[in-house]
Amino acid sequence: MDPDSVAKAFVDHYYSTFDTNRGGLANLYQDSSMLSFEGQKFQGAQNIAAKLASLPFHQCQHSITTVDCQPSGPAGGMLVFVSGNLQLAGEQHALKFSQADPIV
Amino acid sequence: MDPDSVAKAFVDHYYSTFDTNRGGLANLYQDSSMLSFEGQKFQGAQNIAAKLASLPFHQCQHSITTVDCQPSGPAGGMLVFVSGNLQLAGEQHALKFSQADPIV
Repeated sequence: MDPDSVAKAFVDHYYSTFDTNRGGLANLYQDSSMLSFEGQKFQGAQNIAAKLASLPFHQCQHSITTVDCQPSGPAGGMLVFVSGNLQLAGEQHALKFSQADPIV
Repeated sequence: MDPDSVAKAFVDHYYSTFDTNRGGLANLYQDSSMLSFEGQKFQGAQNIAAKLASLPFHQCQHSITTVDCQPSGPAGGMLVFVSGNLQLAGEQHALKFSQADPIV
């Protein structure tokens, strides 16, 4: 698979997990992983999953608008940049979101 | 300086250069640098600066809303994530933008 296809597959998997089984996101992070979320920092799969589980909404649906990727680091990692809309249950208007995912 | 202050200083410098002396952005990239811009990929300081110089607007002003950073890679780099508004001269409404800057 070319890098763009890997990035697209990762993004599809990440956000479908987010929308349908948020606790499963813990499997997509490692102990060394870090999450910066609206100015707060979290480290480690469990802390990151706990933060994401604590977000003040339950049902949500991400719609992806753009996926960009580029190689990152000497070990074959990549940096994936995502933007799109986030529809929360019961809300009339979708939120815009963007996220950078360094993948190792 | 702590990492957050470094990130903030970098972001201030990058976007003030963008808004006042766009050609000077070439000095902020290396030959190994990559830019992914709305689905297009560019490599090297000159190619990246040429792309940014070719954007279809001249006067612009970035207003930064958020700056997040985290360490990245074994060599002391960091990943900076920025979001904000981009006001173009002559346009009534600002655009939203977000950008991830891997700094080595």
